Amino acid sequence: MNNALVLFSGGQDSTTCLAWALSRFDHVETIGFDYGQRHRIELDVRPTVLAGLRKIADWGSKLGDDHMIDLAVLGQISQTALTQNVAIAMQDNGLPNTFVPGRNLIFMNFSAAVAYRRGIKNIITGVCETDFSGYPDCRDDTMKAVQIALNLGTESRFVIHTPLMWIDKAQTWELAEELGQTALVDLIREDTHTCYNGDRTHSHDWGFGCGTCPACELRAQGYARFIAD
Amino acid sequence: MNNALVLFSGGQDSTTCLAWALSRFDHVETIGFDYGQRHRIELDVRPTVLAGLRKIADWGSKLGDDHMIDLAVLGQISQTALTQNVAIAMQDNGLPNTFVPGRNLIFMNFSAAVAYRRGIKNIITGVCETDFSGYPDCRDDTMKAVQIALNLGTESRFVIHTPLMWIDKAQTWELAEELGQTALVDLIREDTHTCYNGDRTHSHDWGFGCGTCPACELRAQGYARFIAD
Repeated sequence: MNNALVLFSGGQDSTTCLAWALSRFDHVETIGFDYGQRHRIELDVRPTVLAGLRKIADWGSKLGDDHMIDLAVLGQISQTALTQNVAIAMQDNGLPNTFVPGRNLIFMNFSAAVAYRRGIKNIITGVCETDFSGYPDCRDDTMKAVQIALNLGTESRFVIHTPLMWIDKAQTWELAEELGQTALVDLIREDTHTCYNGDRTHSHDWGFGCGTCPACELRAQGYARFIAD
Repeated sequence: MNNALVLFSGGQDSTTCLAWALSRFDHVETIGFDYGQRHRIELDVRPTVLAGLRKIADWGSKLGDDHMIDLAVLGQISQTALTQNVAIAMQDNGLPNTFVPGRNLIFMNFSAAVAYRRGIKNIITGVCETDFSGYPDCRDDTMKAVQIALNLGTESRFVIHTPLMWIDKAQTWELAEELGQTALVDLIREDTHTCYNGDRTHSHDWGFGCGTCPACELRAQGYARFIAD
């Protein structure tokens, strides 16, 4: 049971989590969700990132199936910025209007269903409390409650791992360097996508993106601190 | 916030739960899931049951929107009897092979997402420990863990109600009689659907069904004990 399923979106965080899993487990599968994202670029870069990871260390022999799950229904339920063409802003309740209520819980549930079917014990997600986004479904308390609910509900002993929970974006770059040296840092810089605006035309030292949306700002600031250290 | 969202499948249990909610809350909405059930009859009877409930007591003025959620993706993930044309049987792990891992957790998550958007506080589900099905995602422990996970993950105070958790099928018929007298018992007998085989041609005193599948047997035995009391 030294195997894992990684929630892999094609972004910096989940790519780092996937590298973390590949450095620890014998067999690693990936799962992604297509839920009517405003920009499909994050999904489009996934195969490129996976191909790049296969070339690092012995990861090519460990990386197994990639499961893409069609969650278009999420876009139907939500009325939020990530799935509609409206500006990203803060709501009255202090949450960004990109918030789809309980979205990560739904992702975790589907991941557990796939892990159950595949005989996989460990589920890895890049959720993080330190990026200040305020998403309650990314919090440590939530993930620990989800593990209990999933294990009770499926009569299983899944373990949810959250390697990024308590580190910031600079430390996420550092972790990538530890796990896969320059090859991984370069792969994350060049091939992963984070920008909320789907921009792949503007090039920066930290990768492609508009450079001004909150996601680009976080990524750029983290990279600058990583390089400075 | 004296409102509720009822997970309503068109079966006996969820119809009784819906009546329970209509007798307690000022505004009640319903949610159903289309996940590639082997037989769509349960979904097909839903409008008939809803129309019947509107004619009982003051329930017509309380019954609000019905939300149908397309979860065809569940059928893609699962390899189980309810969604495929294979015989219903017990698996080695003691669970019926109709078990979709964590299916009810997924239903609860989507229900919470809809409840969040609709400003609804109470979520009602007909899960039950006493029908001996062995589904771990129907257990009381699971539902209590799910409430905590949902509330942490959405920063809400949803309350999950499970009015059938500790009663058997005979008591479910009794509850229906308490809530809506003969009119509700007749409605449940004639219009709700339970049979795993989708049979609406064979008529019994407890309703339509093949009469021999585990779901029909439970329903028939419960009705016989209800009538005997």
